[in-house]
Amino acid sequence: MTNLDSQFKGKSVLVTGGMGFIGSNLAIRLCRAGADVTILDAMIPDYGGNEFNVHPIKNDVRINFCDIRDETAVNYLVRNQDYIFHLAGQVCHLMSLSNPFPDISINITGTAILMEALRKYNPDAIVVYTGTRGQYGSSVSLPVNEEAPTNPKGIYEISNLTAEKIIKVYNDVHHIPSVLLRLTNIYGPRSQMMHSRFGVFNWFIRKAMDNETIQVFGDGSILRDFCHVDDTVDAIMRASVTKAAYGEIFNVGSDIPVNFRELVEKIIKVAKRGSWQFAEFTPERKAQEPGDFYSDISKIKRIVGWEPRIELENGIANTIDYYEKYRDYYWTRVENAEPKGKETVKLSQAATAPKS
Amino acid sequence: MTNLDSQFKGKSVLVTGGMGFIGSNLAIRLCRAGADVTILDAMIPDYGGNEFNVHPIKNDVRINFCDIRDETAVNYLVRNQDYIFHLAGQVCHLMSLSNPFPDISINITGTAILMEALRKYNPDAIVVYTGTRGQYGSSVSLPVNEEAPTNPKGIYEISNLTAEKIIKVYNDVHHIPSVLLRLTNIYGPRSQMMHSRFGVFNWFIRKAMDNETIQVFGDGSILRDFCHVDDTVDAIMRASVTKAAYGEIFNVGSDIPVNFRELVEKIIKVAKRGSWQFAEFTPERKAQEPGDFYSDISKIKRIVGWEPRIELENGIANTIDYYEKYRDYYWTRVENAEPKGKETVKLSQAATAPKS
Repeated sequence: MTNLDSQFKGKSVLVTGGMGFIGSNLAIRLCRAGADVTILDAMIPDYGGNEFNVHPIKNDVRINFCDIRDETAVNYLVRNQDYIFHLAGQVCHLMSLSNPFPDISINITGTAILMEALRKYNPDAIVVYTGTRGQYGSSVSLPVNEEAPTNPKGIYEISNLTAEKIIKVYNDVHHIPSVLLRLTNIYGPRSQMMHSRFGVFNWFIRKAMDNETIQVFGDGSILRDFCHVDDTVDAIMRASVTKAAYGEIFNVGSDIPVNFRELVEKIIKVAKRGSWQFAEFTPERKAQEPGDFYSDISKIKRIVGWEPRIELENGIANTIDYYEKYRDYYWTRVENAEPKGKETVKLSQAATAPKS
Repeated sequence: MTNLDSQFKGKSVLVTGGMGFIGSNLAIRLCRAGADVTILDAMIPDYGGNEFNVHPIKNDVRINFCDIRDETAVNYLVRNQDYIFHLAGQVCHLMSLSNPFPDISINITGTAILMEALRKYNPDAIVVYTGTRGQYGSSVSLPVNEEAPTNPKGIYEISNLTAEKIIKVYNDVHHIPSVLLRLTNIYGPRSQMMHSRFGVFNWFIRKAMDNETIQVFGDGSILRDFCHVDDTVDAIMRASVTKAAYGEIFNVGSDIPVNFRELVEKIIKVAKRGSWQFAEFTPERKAQEPGDFYSDISKIKRIVGWEPRIELENGIANTIDYYEKYRDYYWTRVENAEPKGKETVKLSQAATAPKS
């Protein structure tokens, strides 16, 4: 067990959105570190929740199905928790432009319900919130640091920024220690793979694995940074135990930008199948496209001591390996999360063992 | 009629929050300019709505009592409007820290309901939104321009910032032309005068008029800028007819900062009564106090051609004059807004005739 993991031994933690992509990876690592883990998840269809995600720990965690807006349940669940990892949310930026209300309700009101619950019943809990690099909108200069203007280009991104600011007010006024992370594009095992509406990197991986043609919007030259979910989980946990991080905003990303064409070529190379072609932006996608982005991660390096360790090709290989094994639980909606045969229960070391 | 006013002759306008402080002053001027004015107001107790506010135009406007969150009513009311002045909102920053939900629901969800209604039923309407200088939080440098960081110190201010960003997305993605104003401390006739929880300047005026002692928090040296409501109405109207202003954020304030001690001394001098003393900040007020603030208004001067015209002492005199005449409709809650005697129906020229 790493020194970081040992700090969670015997701690009570609540992971909201814990059946989802990042939440489940976090819950697995926390559980293996000896934490007493409670997962809260609403399992809203087409969001990230997947019961199979927590298969490796299903007998060792408390899974509580409820909505983050279920005020009385949340009031009850926050009690006696040492850490609250708040990952529940609507995460599709496309949907938010045709219907802004789930974002406002789940991401903003839901966060306020959580913070009010903490104010009233557990103000000593440490909160980590995971927002998005989309909070910045178009980059004024690159790489983007935490002082950059925040001009989000969609309701989803606005709702994340608002949730962040609400938590910051509870940190400052009500003294609930909180760390505010802005995640770049995250990829890796346990992401939803059923549709292309969010999680573009993982969707590209699926297309390659299915030996299909990946659509690259525009001329493929837009720069992004990408971060493997194991590195992301590491950032979340490190930040939560760093007192100097409380009340602070940190980018979580990579300082090695990659353009979409390079990314797709790497995926196809590692997958050894698939192809790609250019595609026109839809007008809606175009209006929301913030252009080049990559994170300045010097602040989290300096204060939290975190940096990403997983190189892109290794991360792609690890991701493909996971979905090769468990494709059936991700390619179509799974109602029953029990693995079909005992031989498939062994999870890949890479997918479940953290890197640090 | 001014050239500005003539641009509203025959135009259909909707003023949300039109029974409140700024909304009613705006509705009166628009009505007198010959606009076809519809007021929407929920008349939530202790908010700004007061039926007496629109007494001068009560036979000339359509007053529609409903909540901004009343989706079907809002969908209906936005149709065929040329201008939407969106002033409805929860405006008490103190309340928002003990109960964040009205701000999120009214200010954020309400704004999304309005913008969705426009997207679906009237995307050509021009929207003006009035946010607050509180969206900036503490000033990084003075005066504060529109590029300054936005780190609000309360849920109310966050909700205003979020509403602004939602409207900006509808401007950018759905092409609904919108002007986003950030108002400094506004004072003048038709503000609520029943309690001290918002509208500090007007509350000071009441205390002086009642020959009471005004509490000045801290050492009274905090700088602010103040803007008379007639100037504010002028800014709102000018911005709405300035094409170059659509999609833009503008401060509405004064570039002449005044500290609270000077302000109180001026009020007492003009009122010829009242006194003042220093008072300790409560911990809650202290945590939210952003320190010195005054607006850089060069952007609105340059693009909209607006600047404030009412000097502070004249504005104070005008405000006192109004409340002397109509004290009964403001000092306590009024259920029946009919003036008691015909002689009181004459409104002061200063309070109802705009300055430009």
